[in-house]
Amino acid sequence: MDNYLALFTLAGSILALLFALTRAKNVLSFGEGNDTMKKISGNIRKGAMAYLTRQYRILIVFFAAMFVILSVMAGFGLLTWFVPFAFVTGGFFSGLSGFIGMSIATRANARTANACQEGLNRGLRVAFSAGSVMGFTVVGLGLLDISIWYLLLRMVFHLELPDITAAMLTFGMGASSMALFARVGGGIYTKAADVGADLVGKVEAGIPEDDPRNPAVIADNVGDNVGDVAGMGADLYESYVSSIISSCSLGVIAFTAIGSGKLAISAVAVPMVMAAIGVLASIICSFFVRTGESTDQSTLLKALRRGTNSSAIMIAIAAFPLVYFIFGMNYIGFYFAIISGLLAGVLIGFFTEYFTSDTYRPTRKLASQSETGSATIIIGGVSLGMLSTVAPIIIIAICVMAAYGVSGGFGDANLGLYGISLAAVGMLSTLGITLATDAYGPIADNAGGIAEMAGLDPEVRRRTDALDSLGNTTAATGKGFAIGSAALTALALIASYVQKIQQIDMKIKLDMTIMNPVVLIGIFIGACLPFIFAALTMDSVGKAAQSIVKEVRRQFKEIPGLMEGKADADYTRCVDLCTKASLREMILPTILAIVTPIVVGLILGHNGVIGMLAGATATGFLLAIFMANAGGAWDNAKKYIESGVHGGKGSDAHKAAVVGDTVGDPFKDTSGPSINILIKLLSMVSIVFAGLVVNFHIF
Amino acid sequence: MDNYLALFTLAGSILALLFALTRAKNVLSFGEGNDTMKKISGNIRKGAMAYLTRQYRILIVFFAAMFVILSVMAGFGLLTWFVPFAFVTGGFFSGLSGFIGMSIATRANARTANACQEGLNRGLRVAFSAGSVMGFTVVGLGLLDISIWYLLLRMVFHLELPDITAAMLTFGMGASSMALFARVGGGIYTKAADVGADLVGKVEAGIPEDDPRNPAVIADNVGDNVGDVAGMGADLYESYVSSIISSCSLGVIAFTAIGSGKLAISAVAVPMVMAAIGVLASIICSFFVRTGESTDQSTLLKALRRGTNSSAIMIAIAAFPLVYFIFGMNYIGFYFAIISGLLAGVLIGFFTEYFTSDTYRPTRKLASQSETGSATIIIGGVSLGMLSTVAPIIIIAICVMAAYGVSGGFGDANLGLYGISLAAVGMLSTLGITLATDAYGPIADNAGGIAEMAGLDPEVRRRTDALDSLGNTTAATGKGFAIGSAALTALALIASYVQKIQQIDMKIKLDMTIMNPVVLIGIFIGACLPFIFAALTMDSVGKAAQSIVKEVRRQFKEIPGLMEGKADADYTRCVDLCTKASLREMILPTILAIVTPIVVGLILGHNGVIGMLAGATATGFLLAIFMANAGGAWDNAKKYIESGVHGGKGSDAHKAAVVGDTVGDPFKDTSGPSINILIKLLSMVSIVFAGLVVNFHIF
Repeated sequence: MDNYLALFTLAGSILALLFALTRAKNVLSFGEGNDTMKKISGNIRKGAMAYLTRQYRILIVFFAAMFVILSVMAGFGLLTWFVPFAFVTGGFFSGLSGFIGMSIATRANARTANACQEGLNRGLRVAFSAGSVMGFTVVGLGLLDISIWYLLLRMVFHLELPDITAAMLTFGMGASSMALFARVGGGIYTKAADVGADLVGKVEAGIPEDDPRNPAVIADNVGDNVGDVAGMGADLYESYVSSIISSCSLGVIAFTAIGSGKLAISAVAVPMVMAAIGVLASIICSFFVRTGESTDQSTLLKALRRGTNSSAIMIAIAAFPLVYFIFGMNYIGFYFAIISGLLAGVLIGFFTEYFTSDTYRPTRKLASQSETGSATIIIGGVSLGMLSTVAPIIIIAICVMAAYGVSGGFGDANLGLYGISLAAVGMLSTLGITLATDAYGPIADNAGGIAEMAGLDPEVRRRTDALDSLGNTTAATGKGFAIGSAALTALALIASYVQKIQQIDMKIKLDMTIMNPVVLIGIFIGACLPFIFAALTMDSVGKAAQSIVKEVRRQFKEIPGLMEGKADADYTRCVDLCTKASLREMILPTILAIVTPIVVGLILGHNGVIGMLAGATATGFLLAIFMANAGGAWDNAKKYIESGVHGGKGSDAHKAAVVGDTVGDPFKDTSGPSINILIKLLSMVSIVFAGLVVNFHIF
Repeated sequence: MDNYLALFTLAGSILALLFALTRAKNVLSFGEGNDTMKKISGNIRKGAMAYLTRQYRILIVFFAAMFVILSVMAGFGLLTWFVPFAFVTGGFFSGLSGFIGMSIATRANARTANACQEGLNRGLRVAFSAGSVMGFTVVGLGLLDISIWYLLLRMVFHLELPDITAAMLTFGMGASSMALFARVGGGIYTKAADVGADLVGKVEAGIPEDDPRNPAVIADNVGDNVGDVAGMGADLYESYVSSIISSCSLGVIAFTAIGSGKLAISAVAVPMVMAAIGVLASIICSFFVRTGESTDQSTLLKALRRGTNSSAIMIAIAAFPLVYFIFGMNYIGFYFAIISGLLAGVLIGFFTEYFTSDTYRPTRKLASQSETGSATIIIGGVSLGMLSTVAPIIIIAICVMAAYGVSGGFGDANLGLYGISLAAVGMLSTLGITLATDAYGPIADNAGGIAEMAGLDPEVRRRTDALDSLGNTTAATGKGFAIGSAALTALALIASYVQKIQQIDMKIKLDMTIMNPVVLIGIFIGACLPFIFAALTMDSVGKAAQSIVKEVRRQFKEIPGLMEGKADADYTRCVDLCTKASLREMILPTILAIVTPIVVGLILGHNGVIGMLAGATATGFLLAIFMANAGGAWDNAKKYIESGVHGGKGSDAHKAAVVGDTVGDPFKDTSGPSINILIKLLSMVSIVFAGLVVNFHIF
């Protein structure tokens, strides 16, 4: 039976990839506009590809080194021989997701701008189609990787189910490493270019955003693609795959423990088939996304929400018969676990929007704090961001308790942990379409830049702005899902780690009580990791931005006629600087994330590692929400002031709000999202190196 | 034997109080200067006293209500009858510490300014003497409370040792509540006045700091007293007392468990006698603090360091025979536990200084980030603050492991936990003198204000500035001790909570493993609490500051001749506004800190509470360090720029640094220090309400 289920998942994967292909063709069928637009878009594409090529060149070294290390460990019997290969495929597919998403995004930007010349709906269709390519490529490749490995291990190597899921769990580490590199590198790139361009262009020289005279303008647009598209693609590929494989693994262990091989297969089937059904629902509902010619935010938002909400409802309905047929009525609680995750995602998304959208009180109050200067709006934003952690914490707490309880966790803890992992799968089941609505934002942003640089009719810019601004709102919701699912998946991975330890040696006595000083210290060290990580990435943005600032200042001074528009800026120098700086800066934080759990394990042992993972998950979750929401609120407070309140554009209040926005940039687009990956990568590394840690540790 | 030890502690307490009295007399023997100075000082004193009077009026209602609640619980047998009374005395002495410290500080400010007219050394002596009054009052009253209760319960009520320490543990809750009210209220007051005065006075009207034309100038100086003196006094009283009583309690439990009543007495004796020895060492070494006429920072710092370092060395030497005579060679490990705490305190203090003093790289780099505007210095400061958590986390981790290990924790966990609590006692044993060096800062600050307002010779201001600036450095070290000891004490209190639960009912099976979802959720919720707390207190500062801004603007507009110096500002209105706003705003955060552990306990049960305490301690520690160091670094980066680098005073870089400093104000003086108290209060409340939670909870 299980092979058919895997084939079903494979079919879902192929369906998703085919749909992505049709969407890509659809995007390419639109015209790119005039020669200037083609040239600008070409420059952006060239810069983005140059970045990715160099990034991959570095990562090949990293992956090769890790392959050797893992092979040596496999040679010593600390790992199975599948792990090094699984590690590489995880990284490969994660990178490929980002690459494909970016390829189409850099081809869709000029096309979106061009389509906006004809009308808003046409623009939305191009951008949303391109976003869909990304969304469905991510889920398609994710399911492809999972189902191929499953079939390979099952049909070719004839492994037992627990060995299969244990091996598959490790390719998450490849995906997570890749994702972290992509997120951190891309995040540093995009914000360094953005902050650098703004500080000299907007603030010092007083020229508008996306002005072609600004030497950093192409780098800024490249940044949208390498950070917000390629980085996000790799990131969500990792989230998606991690949630499914950790769920499979926990399910198999839960039912193997109670001696039911048949139910163990069911436990693998549910998350896989859920994902395939999610693909189907997302495809259907993506056709509901269309709009008229009104640029009214609420109409546009309604169009997108129609797509995401209906797919959520469709999945909620379809999941019931799925669980019923696979597990029977005895385990129908798993259905409610899935629903609790789906619901928690929606609720966290709502609260993210509440705290960051200018239609609600918090962001409006923040905007008013700009009237007494930049200091008060900074204090206000930090306070808002910290306060916004309350609702998500409570939602996740209730979701975890509910998923654990309805799955029978109070009778058998293993079932409860499986339930928690199913909640994560439920939350991410609509990823195909939510990611599409998320990924289209940077495309619209790029389109606006091209419209500005190519000197198109201001009406076009107004349309792209409407699309872009909408993208900020959907991005906020998307972030809510990403953070929520990261927390649930991280919890599931901690459980997987615990079970991995017991798998290695049943005789190991785990002492995970908080009063064990090793656990306590682990919690402290783990809690500190997201702080270090955020500090390092912010510092990197600062460093990289400084180098851009200097270069832009130099060009303004040294290139005669640049400010008068008579000479061209040297865009490639800025693109080059950003590339070098971000690639250099991405290495330390990522290596740190990989090395720390190993070092902590070798010193404090597996109990210390468990404490570390719990501490990192808790503060990582909080810090990610704090940074994302503070950044989002500052951004929208600035936009709100630009709409004419508190003196509008150019007023002192506006200047104060720009400071807030600039501070928020690395918060929300570099450090915050990277932390989501960090907390999962820590668990993944711990799982892969568990054999080493169990055999060699000090305490 | 133990009664004699308690009497020895009582003697130490009386010695400390007598020494404080001689210091107070010494301060009062100096002249207050001319009539203007007397008048200004009188106004500050009046404002400060008005604030305290109203604060105490509110707190009497709170303490009365809590007394009734605790009495009702005692009536139902959920508590012993000593608890309500112990609660009230804890609060009373904590408040008294702040009151006495502030009374002398407000009498020493003009005297310091006046003494500075004659010379720097004379000024230092007045200010340091006044600081010593505070330092020795805190330790004296702390030891008085402890020894009186001990003697009362032992000699009058003839209680058994375990019952005595259990009852004494609960008066920590009174001290913690009082401390939190005082820290939060005072912290909001001082920063609202400071930020409000700066935003309108310095930034808008362009008049210098402490200019008598600024209507908020008196409020600003009152703030130094109610926040940095009274608040800090109540705070450190709580730290000191909590560390000693939690140590006594853990020691008694450890040795009662192995059936040795005699060693249990020794376990109580060590922390108490350690404290008394600390008093002696601090008194002796406070005479080493004297300087010549050079205003050179390093000379002044050396004078203060001579006092604190020699007292640390003296205690380190004296502790060895103490432990040897009381416990014998078998338990000499406890000596090393004490030393590990003492050393950890010194190291954390050093790293605090490293990250916040402009003699080191981090703050200098931060200052340079002001060159690209306020956004980059804010990002830089956040990054610096977050990164500065690494060293303290590692130091505390090593200290905990060391104290646990050398005390024999790996054989008997109870001994290890006692060892951790002894480390906290060791860290705070030099409190008498470290607090003196800490408390003299705001006095020097006030003296500078009076010198400015009274129009004294600029040389006087230069001298008070030298004293003040030194105060910032010692305050940084003091903060390191406060945070480090808070973390250790909080850990000891978690252990006390666990033992309290088992004391209530030996049959209760504790499931504190991290994989228990209740514990996990507890960790998440606990981790969130410091974020909420920081958000609320920052928001309060913002709100209160806004009301000051409006009032100052109004006075500038409506009082004719104010700006020309022909009319007097209405200082009392501002003082009044600050008082009202800060008292109103202090209530919610504090009540939240008291109610949350009870609610969490009633829902998640005692296992959830343990998780919550661990989570809160970990993130609380991190957030407190982050906020204190970011704030300190911004402050000193601004001062560094004012010394002439990056364009000096008035340059764009300086303006950017002022924004950083203003953001840092509530970070370092309101939210950060309050979090230290929060994490202990959460444990204290949990301990007191343990009986309720054990009997009634949902999960």
